Amino acid sequence: MANTEFGYVRNFEVHDSIAPSNWIVVRIDGRGFSKLCKKYHFTKPNDKRALDLMNAAAAEVVKSFVDIVVAYGQSDEYSFVFHENTTLFERRREKLSTSVATMFTAEYCMLWPQFMRREEGDERFAEKGDVIELERPWPTFDGRCVAYPRCRILRDYLKWRQADCHINNLYNTTFWNMVLKGGMSGTEAELELKGTLARDKNEILWSRFGVNYNAELEVFKKGSVIYRDLGVEDRERKVNGDGGGKAATEGSRSQVEKERKRKLKARIVVEHVDIIQDAFWERRPWILAERKGGG
Amino acid sequence: MANTEFGYVRNFEVHDSIAPSNWIVVRIDGRGFSKLCKKYHFTKPNDKRALDLMNAAAAEVVKSFVDIVVAYGQSDEYSFVFHENTTLFERRREKLSTSVATMFTAEYCMLWPQFMRREEGDERFAEKGDVIELERPWPTFDGRCVAYPRCRILRDYLKWRQADCHINNLYNTTFWNMVLKGGMSGTEAELELKGTLARDKNEILWSRFGVNYNAELEVFKKGSVIYRDLGVEDRERKVNGDGGGKAATEGSRSQVEKERKRKLKARIVVEHVDIIQDAFWERRPWILAERKGGG
Amino acid sequence: MANTEFGYVRNFEVHDSIAPSNWIVVRIDGRGFSKLCKKYHFTKPNDKRALDLMNAAAAEVVKSFVDIVVAYGQSDEYSFVFHENTTLFERRREKLSTSVATMFTAEYCMLWPQFMRREEGDERFAEKGDVIELERPWPTFDGRCVAYPRCRILRDYLKWRQADCHINNLYNTTFWNMVLKGGMSGTEAELELKGTLARDKNEILWSRFGVNYNAELEVFKKGSVIYRDLGVEDRERKVNGDGGGKAATEGSRSQVEKERKRKLKARIVVEHVDIIQDAFWERRPWILAERKGGG
Amino acid sequence: MANTEFGYVRNFEVHDSIAPSNWIVVRIDGRGFSKLCKKYHFTKPNDKRALDLMNAAAAEVVKSFVDIVVAYGQSDEYSFVFHENTTLFERRREKLSTSVATMFTAEYCMLWPQFMRREEGDERFAEKGDVIELERPWPTFDGRCVAYPRCRILRDYLKWRQADCHINNLYNTTFWNMVLKGGMSGTEAELELKGTLARDKNEILWSRFGVNYNAELEVFKKGSVIYRDLGVEDRERKVNGDGGGKAATEGSRSQVEKERKRKLKARIVVEHVDIIQDAFWERRPWILAERKGGG
Repeated sequence: MANTEFGYVRNFEVHDSIAPSNWIVVRIDGRGFSKLCKKYHFTKPNDKRALDLMNAAAAEVVKSFVDIVVAYGQSDEYSFVFHENTTLFERRREKLSTSVATMFTAEYCMLWPQFMRREEGDERFAEKGDVIELERPWPTFDGRCVAYPRCRILRDYLKWRQADCHINNLYNTTFWNMVLKGGMSGTEAELELKGTLARDKNEILWSRFGVNYNAELEVFKKGSVIYRDLGVEDRERKVNGDGGGKAATEGSRSQVEKERKRKLKARIVVEHVDIIQDAFWERRPWILAERKGGG
Repeated sequence: MANTEFGYVRNFEVHDSIAPSNWIVVRIDGRGFSKLCKKYHFTKPNDKRALDLMNAAAAEVVKSFVDIVVAYGQSDEYSFVFHENTTLFERRREKLSTSVATMFTAEYCMLWPQFMRREEGDERFAEKGDVIELERPWPTFDGRCVAYPRCRILRDYLKWRQADCHINNLYNTTFWNMVLKGGMSGTEAELELKGTLARDKNEILWSRFGVNYNAELEVFKKGSVIYRDLGVEDRERKVNGDGGGKAATEGSRSQVEKERKRKLKARIVVEHVDIIQDAFWERRPWILAERKGGG
Repeated sequence: MANTEFGYVRNFEVHDSIAPSNWIVVRIDGRGFSKLCKKYHFTKPNDKRALDLMNAAAAEVVKSFVDIVVAYGQSDEYSFVFHENTTLFERRREKLSTSVATMFTAEYCMLWPQFMRREEGDERFAEKGDVIELERPWPTFDGRCVAYPRCRILRDYLKWRQADCHINNLYNTTFWNMVLKGGMSGTEAELELKGTLARDKNEILWSRFGVNYNAELEVFKKGSVIYRDLGVEDRERKVNGDGGGKAATEGSRSQVEKERKRKLKARIVVEHVDIIQDAFWERRPWILAERKGGG
Repeated sequence: MANTEFGYVRNFEVHDSIAPSNWIVVRIDGRGFSKLCKKYHFTKPNDKRALDLMNAAAAEVVKSFVDIVVAYGQSDEYSFVFHENTTLFERRREKLSTSVATMFTAEYCMLWPQFMRREEGDERFAEKGDVIELERPWPTFDGRCVAYPRCRILRDYLKWRQADCHINNLYNTTFWNMVLKGGMSGTEAELELKGTLARDKNEILWSRFGVNYNAELEVFKKGSVIYRDLGVEDRERKVNGDGGGKAATEGSRSQVEKERKRKLKARIVVEHVDIIQDAFWERRPWILAERKGGG
């Protein structure tokens, strides 16, 4: 058969499975988003609607991949954490990153009209209607997998992203106040901010613009963390003496299936809280809990 | 600064650049498309509107990545071929596959209303309007990169896909005629088709259903090939003695930029023709032509 | 310069660094050792001299790579464990495996005359002298790196090798008693042993040949484990309140150098003991202890 | 069985097969050879005995791997080229590099006494005998695989190595003449040579030391190339109309076996000639000739 003759080309495909017992982060990043922000007149330094859209898209991704235990997002990026024991797509790198990135992209595009509406009195848009119409090039996101061999290192990864959010947001908030309210040019503001510390920026905000950085929205300062609220059930299970039995530890198939369903039903939570300190994790022990087998 | 402390987590990212001088195929595949076909009542064995949608999405992808020299699609898959010398994204595997897959996904979702309209007299849809409304889960596509070290092997890859298209289409055409017109059950049709050769299927189609397979639409039988029509300009350049000069062979920066612009302006062609034989390639020598440097 | 023109070929080399915070096992295996065993009339089922040679070669390898924390060997294989924080050769896979495998090979070849001597009364050798002369093909060993993301999994790896040693040795001891003392053919012995459990083999050994498996040499039953005896100093350091100070935790350069020297001077120990149970590791806590930075 | 419980650790091993249709170069490099050169008083700038030893070791490696089509060596490095179609060790990267590197190391150590003999009147050695006795650390070699997707690029790789040989040798020859005959310090010679062109070095050699660089030994200037002399038989086969028949093109198993034997018997040639120009390759067309299948 003709096709057997050419089938040898399959041998050029690579095995790109990520080693077992590594937490897998799929991070997606907006492609060309600085252009996109300008084109659709995103509010500076933060566009609340755009962040809500990011979060809504991410929540749908978390919802449909039960092996994602937590996600963290800020600006135009989102990190999705797959449990270290996931066997999804045989842990194949490209399958994971393309599946997550395309689902996120589809959600972002399809949810756009729900979130990106013209704000009262905003005269920048020609359209009559109140939806900001999306045009080509459509928003897209690239993605990559990173494997973390230890829970502690994964948490450092998440700390890194949240610290990055804080640093950028403080800078951007100060910069845009200097430009929009202070009437400085971008270059002037940049020059003045060079080498300043956090307290310097806080001081500029307060003394010149009366802005208390601490009073800024948490979603701007902390970014967003998304997870399944399995807490209630966890507590119930403990009361009933359930969940610690033989079936659970053996990870029997029916148990795995039951778990899957429990997760599918669980409420997806979006919060803007500190994930650098231990408190967040200690109060939600199920998020990074060990699990038997894939699933 | 806090962030330097955690920045070490970047060292876990992998270098996944594809070796130079390899043609790079990014193949995208519909995720869960058999379910999707059922949900939206795609016509069997081929839904012309859905194929047109695939082709329109693919054409946009080809348009925006100037280093894609040719693309081939059939059913719910598409293969995009990047020139062996591309330096896009430093040839990083995941960057290439996620960028192509997300753009394709965005195009597919956004172009859907233009293509997926209710056909005259089709009573299967509840909606009053004539657009088949897209619902969650949105259509998405996974993607993977494969590197081919030789033009000849790349062409074998494309032959493989087109031969696959032919085999599947002949089978599906016969199967669905047996089921839809012949009143057989799926299992019965499957059983009878087991082990049959191409001529047997042609015979079933003709003798039982009066169907001449050769008269089927070319897009069904051959799939779709997309490329830039640089032929006219190529011929003009030859007449003018242009394009073979020092600048061209040296791949100077301005020349590269000029080439890029030429490609951006070029007409994107979608055809349903044989790419297994040499003729197609011989008549369009620019498609797989050598190029200096990336670009 | 001519060489710059061709230097682009370096771009085809791959980055094969192993991700940080993974324990790295380099396992070497004798190439074509069943032939070699026959050629030099190795004693069956175990040749004590050959195992001593393996151990002597491995001890030299451990000695010269201070980042190897432990090694385990049996039959014609040896596993060398590099500390999870090693930065040797930038953790490059092929550098690590070829450097270990070639050093082991050199040691094995050069130490051969010291270990492989004709035993008293052994008439199988033509040579007059008492050294069994090595001939081409020289003994060589292939090697591979495996990365383990957790100490517990690394220990499972070592358990796997020692369990393998036990299983093979019990089988081989029984098989060769049946053949050499019992006068059975290889095929007959194989047939009888098929499906037998450990206790069946013990029973065959004892009832037919008066062999008490438990009395066999520990090196045969347990294989060999090699490590640095840093225990005494560890205890001394504790008494002196040394080693826990600021310098140690900071991994300062001079501290790292001091550590290196301490390891270079440490006694290399070769033992034939159980490493499956916890006891071995609990009594030698320094072997798998955490360390700051590369070491 | 205990071992099944731990067997999961095998899942951490990586698939590292090199893509088909790529030429595979295994390059080995002496580890710590500048120290070794000093220790054993290698002649500067070139030690003929040491190069002869390298070549003898390499010839044995070529002899035992029939899929090595050509090897090129200079200084303390050697590159072994496996045919693009080799299926040896399933083209696994580490298997190839460790197998070649350990065999080379074993040969180098075992052949040492044959080549490294004290030269007449050389008083630097304490030993009475005329063999320079090898001591620990034994000479070892690291190794790496590089895949080249095209014959032309592979040839550029070999050109790169031979150009490198020329450049280094001209420099070293000049440098050591300046130091050994000219009485300059190393630093002085280095300083003077900085920025000089080839003709400047030739001039220094000739005018100051009466050395005609062109008259230097070819093995110093060109390095060494090793291959199988299949030429005679090739010609014979053509005369007999053999070798082009059906069996050959089909790569039938018996034909492959016949080929293997032919190669095993072929004379191994070591030459010191130009491989940068086409002439070398045109006269020995069998070296880089295409072959069906692995083998």
